[in-house]
Amino acid sequence: MSTEVKPGIFLRPLGMEPPSDRELLCIFGTGDLGRSLGQRLLQTGYRVVYGSRRPHSCGPLPPGAQVLSHTEAAQLASLIFICVHREHYDFLETLAPQLKGKVFVDLSNNQKKDMYPDTNAEYLQRLVPGALVVKGLNTLSAWVLLNGPLAGKQVFLCGDSVEAKQVVRELATRLGLSVLDRGSLSAAREVEDFPLQLFPYWRLPLCIATGLTAFFFFYLLIRDVIYAYVEQDKDISFRIIASLANKVFPIVSLIMLSLCYLPGVMAAILQLYRGTKYSRFPDWLDRWMLCRKQLGLLALALAFLHVLYTFIIPIRYAVRHKLISTVVDEMKDNKSTLFYFDNTEAWATDSFFVLGIMGFFLYFLLGLTSLPSVGGSLSWREFTFVQSKLGHLTLIVCTAHGYIYGWNKFLKPSTYKWWTPPGYMLCLVMPSVVLVLKLLMVLPCVDRSLGRIRQGWERTGPEEGRASLRATTL
Amino acid sequence: MSTEVKPGIFLRPLGMEPPSDRELLCIFGTGDLGRSLGQRLLQTGYRVVYGSRRPHSCGPLPPGAQVLSHTEAAQLASLIFICVHREHYDFLETLAPQLKGKVFVDLSNNQKKDMYPDTNAEYLQRLVPGALVVKGLNTLSAWVLLNGPLAGKQVFLCGDSVEAKQVVRELATRLGLSVLDRGSLSAAREVEDFPLQLFPYWRLPLCIATGLTAFFFFYLLIRDVIYAYVEQDKDISFRIIASLANKVFPIVSLIMLSLCYLPGVMAAILQLYRGTKYSRFPDWLDRWMLCRKQLGLLALALAFLHVLYTFIIPIRYAVRHKLISTVVDEMKDNKSTLFYFDNTEAWATDSFFVLGIMGFFLYFLLGLTSLPSVGGSLSWREFTFVQSKLGHLTLIVCTAHGYIYGWNKFLKPSTYKWWTPPGYMLCLVMPSVVLVLKLLMVLPCVDRSLGRIRQGWERTGPEEGRASLRATTL
Amino acid sequence: MSTEVKPGIFLRPLGMEPPSDRELLCIFGTGDLGRSLGQRLLQTGYRVVYGSRRPHSCGPLPPGAQVLSHTEAAQLASLIFICVHREHYDFLETLAPQLKGKVFVDLSNNQKKDMYPDTNAEYLQRLVPGALVVKGLNTLSAWVLLNGPLAGKQVFLCGDSVEAKQVVRELATRLGLSVLDRGSLSAAREVEDFPLQLFPYWRLPLCIATGLTAFFFFYLLIRDVIYAYVEQDKDISFRIIASLANKVFPIVSLIMLSLCYLPGVMAAILQLYRGTKYSRFPDWLDRWMLCRKQLGLLALALAFLHVLYTFIIPIRYAVRHKLISTVVDEMKDNKSTLFYFDNTEAWATDSFFVLGIMGFFLYFLLGLTSLPSVGGSLSWREFTFVQSKLGHLTLIVCTAHGYIYGWNKFLKPSTYKWWTPPGYMLCLVMPSVVLVLKLLMVLPCVDRSLGRIRQGWERTGPEEGRASLRATTL
Repeated sequence: MSTEVKPGIFLRPLGMEPPSDRELLCIFGTGDLGRSLGQRLLQTGYRVVYGSRRPHSCGPLPPGAQVLSHTEAAQLASLIFICVHREHYDFLETLAPQLKGKVFVDLSNNQKKDMYPDTNAEYLQRLVPGALVVKGLNTLSAWVLLNGPLAGKQVFLCGDSVEAKQVVRELATRLGLSVLDRGSLSAAREVEDFPLQLFPYWRLPLCIATGLTAFFFFYLLIRDVIYAYVEQDKDISFRIIASLANKVFPIVSLIMLSLCYLPGVMAAILQLYRGTKYSRFPDWLDRWMLCRKQLGLLALALAFLHVLYTFIIPIRYAVRHKLISTVVDEMKDNKSTLFYFDNTEAWATDSFFVLGIMGFFLYFLLGLTSLPSVGGSLSWREFTFVQSKLGHLTLIVCTAHGYIYGWNKFLKPSTYKWWTPPGYMLCLVMPSVVLVLKLLMVLPCVDRSLGRIRQGWERTGPEEGRASLRATTL
Repeated sequence: MSTEVKPGIFLRPLGMEPPSDRELLCIFGTGDLGRSLGQRLLQTGYRVVYGSRRPHSCGPLPPGAQVLSHTEAAQLASLIFICVHREHYDFLETLAPQLKGKVFVDLSNNQKKDMYPDTNAEYLQRLVPGALVVKGLNTLSAWVLLNGPLAGKQVFLCGDSVEAKQVVRELATRLGLSVLDRGSLSAAREVEDFPLQLFPYWRLPLCIATGLTAFFFFYLLIRDVIYAYVEQDKDISFRIIASLANKVFPIVSLIMLSLCYLPGVMAAILQLYRGTKYSRFPDWLDRWMLCRKQLGLLALALAFLHVLYTFIIPIRYAVRHKLISTVVDEMKDNKSTLFYFDNTEAWATDSFFVLGIMGFFLYFLLGLTSLPSVGGSLSWREFTFVQSKLGHLTLIVCTAHGYIYGWNKFLKPSTYKWWTPPGYMLCLVMPSVVLVLKLLMVLPCVDRSLGRIRQGWERTGPEEGRASLRATTL
Repeated sequence: MSTEVKPGIFLRPLGMEPPSDRELLCIFGTGDLGRSLGQRLLQTGYRVVYGSRRPHSCGPLPPGAQVLSHTEAAQLASLIFICVHREHYDFLETLAPQLKGKVFVDLSNNQKKDMYPDTNAEYLQRLVPGALVVKGLNTLSAWVLLNGPLAGKQVFLCGDSVEAKQVVRELATRLGLSVLDRGSLSAAREVEDFPLQLFPYWRLPLCIATGLTAFFFFYLLIRDVIYAYVEQDKDISFRIIASLANKVFPIVSLIMLSLCYLPGVMAAILQLYRGTKYSRFPDWLDRWMLCRKQLGLLALALAFLHVLYTFIIPIRYAVRHKLISTVVDEMKDNKSTLFYFDNTEAWATDSFFVLGIMGFFLYFLLGLTSLPSVGGSLSWREFTFVQSKLGHLTLIVCTAHGYIYGWNKFLKPSTYKWWTPPGYMLCLVMPSVVLVLKLLMVLPCVDRSLGRIRQGWERTGPEEGRASLRATTL
């Protein structure tokens, strides 16, 4: 390869080929996808011929493209894009002899997962055994082909013929796409399922968030609203809509943030206990670690809602009513000494707010770095710094925010209505545990052992030699 | 191609070429652009020679580059970058014989659109008919070449020689750029205009936003401030600066959000009415659909402003003054029963705020997915889910936010000052219409017809056969 | 090259090669990095063989990969990835004869900068003089190789053999990576340091921000808290935690925003003074201009904190206490006339808030465009428009926000406690200077000279001819 490149630059055979001799590509199917694809190919400098059952009545096609019958079109080109629904593949069977040796790029998608026992691409290959079927580019929609920038967009390819894939890869690269080869045609299921994915990594975190939210909502509903109704005969049901939510969201957010950092600590403990990094983690831990980013982003979303809820506090009717009542009551009873300025209270509430602001700010920075374009521009060390150092700092600040909230309440008996602890206490358990464990991990002695294990060292076992072997590998 | 690749990997002729034999590229012009380009090329492993009129006095050039006269430099390389202003192209005419067969990469840009009757590239081609002119890379500024990461940056190419373009494409790929071929040299106008674009898709949405904002501002100015002055002889002109804006922004935001979803519904109605998806939409509808993203982002910006304005309400002088006056007046008159706690009011205002917060939160999520790097990492189904399901949910929540605002006002005669409806009523018309139409579209019977039409089915017309033909295409 | 491409598309030699004949690549090292790399290569369609000291006990490897001894594995492939810690390179010395002519891709990273006198890659080259060492891909972590999308990710390469680099480049391109060649092996230091970078461009701006924050914190601490304690014997220490911060953050933010725009103005003045754009700027100015983005983002972060602090004002204990005290005192003394509605005050405070909101909104837009994916999608003219026009507008609005804050205070003697000016006055100096200078720069006569200089014109000096020469270059 290397020797062929430079002559190209020196352009030896330059100008020998007339400009009209551009590659001709064939598209079967004159629907939205076929038309958009054709237009993009024409723009990129290819010639395009459409194969159609009725070449004379197939509606508007991009200017510059020819339309012929399927057989005629197929004969002119060696590469054919299949932009036809799977239900209508059968016409290809009759053309099979003429299609031998042609590269078929199957762009089709199904409406749902597992609509058919086999994949579209394998079905196509069975219909036309002589064709070189490449499944791919199916993540491109007609809309994107027509309007969007394709630069850097990732597409998948799979197929049994290495050359056919190479041809399609080059074509895709010319369109500005970034191609990922997923292997042989047996990977077609995966490639066809890709455009049908619906947030697969978000499911587990969403379930956790929903479950925790529901639990704490009902817990606080009982403790606050129902307790007040039963024991004090007061109707404070209006609190359900805003006040309760503003308690539930920060609680769930803090728990979920600590759940982001728990698996890392657990993995470290497991490695220390096993004395090696070469044993696989249990499956549940692996799955947990893979969805930490989504857990963190959901926690951030809840923290964001908490912030919005907090900012509207002073304009809420109930809050303003209480403020006015306080003043009026005080004036009536003429007990102006009651409301003297408490310096400790001022320090405590201001610290509470400031820790909340700082926590949210750090949270927000963490969220920013999880944007693909921001995270991608960080070096490995920067990314680790942000996710580990900044992440744990966020957890510390948010946990302190929680602790200060209850600093002077946790000893009062009135806090434990119906003998239950308040919500903020429950939510502090998990982050406290994570922080204590993390603190143990960064103790010099533990940290050193862990460092050695992660460098590949193994605790002496029966097979002493393995330790030295591993130590050689990154 | 495919057979040439593998030998490369197996490196047969390896080590036969001395490292000094790197490609030599020529740059005409020693300005900022020329120098930055040269430095980047040297970094990427090329050798660079500058062509200059006065090779001995042309200022600092990147270390490692040679400087020669134009003629000498041109003879050494087969590819020449033209980094010279169009006004000074004329010297090339005299060199034309020596430049025959060379690839010219024209990077020049003009200061304004349509400064010259023909494009720079075509002018260059006319001056040196024997050269293979490629217009392109002109979206790269000197600054980006010197400092920025080029990885994935999209550049355009056009030119009449396929080989020349291929050479430039490979060079650009080596610089990490993502290349899009725009066809022959006649596309040079488009390529040259690209760096001069100034938010072309934002113009229409900005006009709509400005128009609506101006209309509602004056409408509310008359209804609120001028009405109070004329009828009640009160000077509340201070409201112009903050209160009015906080009414106008949410109104315009909601209308613009509904304008994002109106064209989709209209297109569906058109398709149902025509019974086919193969007729083109009217031009205005096409243009409208192309700027939906910008409409939505402007609506989000206005919603963001609305949120900021709302949060400062309690610290505004007028608001605090009113709060204090309320208490003082009440105490004076000793009518403490007046201000009793109204549970319904608490529910209504809290619901109003909560819907607002939720609406803004959903809005924000929609905005996030329109970031290129976030949207690009979504699968087609995820993107559709977010833009359609989440988008309509946002519209529903925001519209409900508007309805609750006026739930107990719309029947009072005092609401209709000077017989005009208040602003929030006007702004609810459009979203309500869109939501009702959308509701009709998702009725099972309508949804099924629409689904079939979008699969390619056509209502039976004189030409029965076309329906089946279309049905075969994606 | 160009002629070889098209035959590929026409697939002349198609199907002649059996699919099993895929390239075989060798990986030395079975650690995390080696295993992840192997898995990714297998997915992309390569065959993989591991070289290991103890091929029979090296733990779980990706399915489909072979494991052999180092010597055997090396003989099968011509390209070897070195995924071993530098400390364990020595075994390669003994294999040197068998490794002659092989391409070595050194992916190793060190834990710290400058741990060794020479780079890993050069050390490797010295150990195995016959190998073609290519340093690169070392910015990829095991995690990214296993999970992340590689598409568009930038990797660096350097090495002395052009062919070896070409081979690695193609391989990396096939993995979807975007490759940047950094030149010969002597650039290995730079390439190896890259993953160890920790926000190099952020250091100076962070120092400036920290210094300014500390200065203004102590300045205001003395003026506000200590002054009140000494002169008025009041303990307002609670203000340290929230009120002081809410004064310091906007002050530092505004100064840093003006520091973003100062170097641009200074560069313009320098160019005007020198009458040419071809002299280099002093080093400190160059460094300053390179970190403007980071300066601006830190300023935005501080502005964001200021906004959060402002929104919690009304729920702070001290603020609510003061509000209630005001009412109670007023009622006690029965001087209700004191608190009459001041229309000017309403206008002034509302304008103050609105300018703040608008400033923050513009700030936020500026920050958005500095996201790599947003900025990358703007044309050069759009980017310039946003950074220059919008940036200066932001500075104007924020400066006006500061001026209105003190509009009726700057003449009162009580403002100058202990003869020191208040913080907001100090912070207005820098932005005012920048704005005045910028205003001078856009005066028609100055703007025209500057425009000509930036086009390449030079003020007539002894060497008249140079001017015309420069004028020809972009």
